[in-house]
Amino acid sequence: MASAAAGSSSSSSAYSNSPCAACKFLRRKCLPDCIFAPYFPPEEPQKFANVHKIFGASNVSKLLNEVLPHQREDAVNSLAYEAEARLKDPVYGCVGAISVLQRQVIRLQKELDATNAHLIRFAYTTSNNTSSSIITPTTDHLNHHQDYSSGGAYYGNYNGGNYGSWNGGMN
Amino acid sequence: MASAAAGSSSSSSAYSNSPCAACKFLRRKCLPDCIFAPYFPPEEPQKFANVHKIFGASNVSKLLNEVLPHQREDAVNSLAYEAEARLKDPVYGCVGAISVLQRQVIRLQKELDATNAHLIRFAYTTSNNTSSSIITPTTDHLNHHQDYSSGGAYYGNYNGGNYGSWNGGMN
Repeated sequence: MASAAAGSSSSSSAYSNSPCAACKFLRRKCLPDCIFAPYFPPEEPQKFANVHKIFGASNVSKLLNEVLPHQREDAVNSLAYEAEARLKDPVYGCVGAISVLQRQVIRLQKELDATNAHLIRFAYTTSNNTSSSIITPTTDHLNHHQDYSSGGAYYGNYNGGNYGSWNGGMN
Repeated sequence: MASAAAGSSSSSSAYSNSPCAACKFLRRKCLPDCIFAPYFPPEEPQKFANVHKIFGASNVSKLLNEVLPHQREDAVNSLAYEAEARLKDPVYGCVGAISVLQRQVIRLQKELDATNAHLIRFAYTTSNNTSSSIITPTTDHLNHHQDYSSGGAYYGNYNGGNYGSWNGGMN
């Protein structure tokens, strides 16, 4: 939704006569090749004000020039998301959300493991008394459980690099 | 662990004769009241180089002065985490991790709901054939499930504000 909103507004701002939110904020002439214009429409002044306050205009400009044109809208939206999170929570920023989500994933996975273990117990308990059609879904659940293990590994790869997973507080 | 590491190194760097990583990077004299020194020890030059590249030294300095002294170490560590994530992934930064985690939580919750539904089916199926000691844990699981719903609400409050949850790509 955020992406779609930025997309629609960017197409309108890129060809509008009014300067983009960035050039208006920086009090400079908005030229046709303005790097900010497609992603910071005049209708959203706060979006640029936030990223400017947290990252600085020159850093945002540098980053936009370092990524491919088709990646710039996502880059700007992720910067705007991080900036707003940091303004709401100056200590943890959006790392606070990562910490909460990490704990949720660990708890849910433990709960799922325990529930699946109970399901197996019931499956074996009832296997002599019920039809195999009730046993089959149990196997499906265990297969799904495997999928989530690999999903966890994917996140592990993302967040298990040099900077490791966040554990600098939030308890 | 990251927090503890920063804590130990900060106490050493604050009273060492060598300039902190920030003052060394900025080629300025590291004064006793340097705002960076406790959090950017000379042994970790990359930590400051990363936050300087992404946020800029002046923005980091401003942020440190805006938060309480006891919050500064966590603030620096979360900034360093965000900076390193952005350097690894210039398009999504640590918002990429939020996106992956959000999808993991949704999938795990759905899987847990489905598994609990199966558990209830087995509970009722076996309730006439098994002792109540097997039914009891099932009820516990459902109670735990309620806990996770409230956990989800907590995250929802964090991430469901003005800037909403991230959905700007990552598919």
